[in-house]
Amino acid sequence: MITERVPVVEKIFGANDRLAADNHARLEAAGVFSLNFMASPGAGKTSLIEQTVRHLSGQLRLAVVDGDIATSLDADRAAAAGAVAVQINTGGDCHLDAAMLQSALDELDLSVIDLLIVENVGNLVCPANFSLGTHKSVLVASVPEGDDKPYKYPGAYRGVQALVINKIDLLPYVNFDMEYFQRGASALNPGLATIPVSCRTGDGLDAWLEWVVEQVSTNGRGHEIRRI
Amino acid sequence: MITERVPVVEKIFGANDRLAADNHARLEAAGVFSLNFMASPGAGKTSLIEQTVRHLSGQLRLAVVDGDIATSLDADRAAAAGAVAVQINTGGDCHLDAAMLQSALDELDLSVIDLLIVENVGNLVCPANFSLGTHKSVLVASVPEGDDKPYKYPGAYRGVQALVINKIDLLPYVNFDMEYFQRGASALNPGLATIPVSCRTGDGLDAWLEWVVEQVSTNGRGHEIRRI
Repeated sequence: MITERVPVVEKIFGANDRLAADNHARLEAAGVFSLNFMASPGAGKTSLIEQTVRHLSGQLRLAVVDGDIATSLDADRAAAAGAVAVQINTGGDCHLDAAMLQSALDELDLSVIDLLIVENVGNLVCPANFSLGTHKSVLVASVPEGDDKPYKYPGAYRGVQALVINKIDLLPYVNFDMEYFQRGASALNPGLATIPVSCRTGDGLDAWLEWVVEQVSTNGRGHEIRRI
Repeated sequence: MITERVPVVEKIFGANDRLAADNHARLEAAGVFSLNFMASPGAGKTSLIEQTVRHLSGQLRLAVVDGDIATSLDADRAAAAGAVAVQINTGGDCHLDAAMLQSALDELDLSVIDLLIVENVGNLVCPANFSLGTHKSVLVASVPEGDDKPYKYPGAYRGVQALVINKIDLLPYVNFDMEYFQRGASALNPGLATIPVSCRTGDGLDAWLEWVVEQVSTNGRGHEIRRI
């Protein structure tokens, strides 16, 4: 009898990566730039998306795909702010995967979208392990979570292209050493674009919106794209 | 060719449940009462454990097992507060499982412990799916996470025996409707012991400590146990 090693985990990631590549090609072909938002539960992904939609819907055509264990609370908020919104209920799964995003893309008319925002399930561990096929990933941290999070959840900080530090209006009321926090994030991800904001007061949002608009206009490549 | 369904998930949970039962029997035999703390990253599990150790180490012999992706920051804090502490680094895994707790129990002299606190990985989804063999589970929520969390993460609220609502000192600075939050939690888990606290100011800690001491003295059964 021959016993073979069955690489189950490898297979799962392989299948997911293939679907993620399909999603990416589909978004590229349609001229849609896409961002994957990840964070702990309650860091403020939905609030940041609301603010982004409110401020940019005059100049960009936005769509939001919301991933949650249950409810459509987040998609409702994105829709109320003015975006086309699709809710994915994972039914218990702790992250989105490329197949779920594929299903959501089927629900959207990509030809009328400039920026697609994907809000992942609130979880600082698992979403980082599953590519969706989006162009860039954004990690939303928040001040009351504590300044030790880059050290304790390194995987979440490694693979992203922007770090938004939300709820800076709470800095006077909590113990949060910004320098210690940023030192941890920089060690894991040198040169990471880091933007402190308060979605509640609006502080710092200009810098965030500027980053988003630059990404969309350069398709995340740092130079202008021309559509002929 | 015969194709058979391979119940992989079932097998994983089955093996975990058997190990959890072993852990439980071992704790019972040694007269150790045990609590499994779960929460989002940054809700304040470690701060609550620090306070618990500081206040109760005069009357109970405490040990803490800390689960984290990386670092021994949490176990260091529990040890500094006065507990025997063991750190489990999951190396990427998003939850503790019964086998990890079994390894940690091997590191402890259970005969000199009254209360074992297990701090799970910060994650509002996955830990709820893996029994460890502890007597009761405590969910630590926090005010800045937002009042919609019971609705969006129902699994985390369903299987616990106590809910601590931490960071109530931040209530004046954030939008948090306590009645809406508690209605969501009660719908999922009627009669759940709910204790609002601030680990920062100490507000509410008396009620929490009273709950813990009652659990230990009655072995979680609501009546006195006599050790003959």
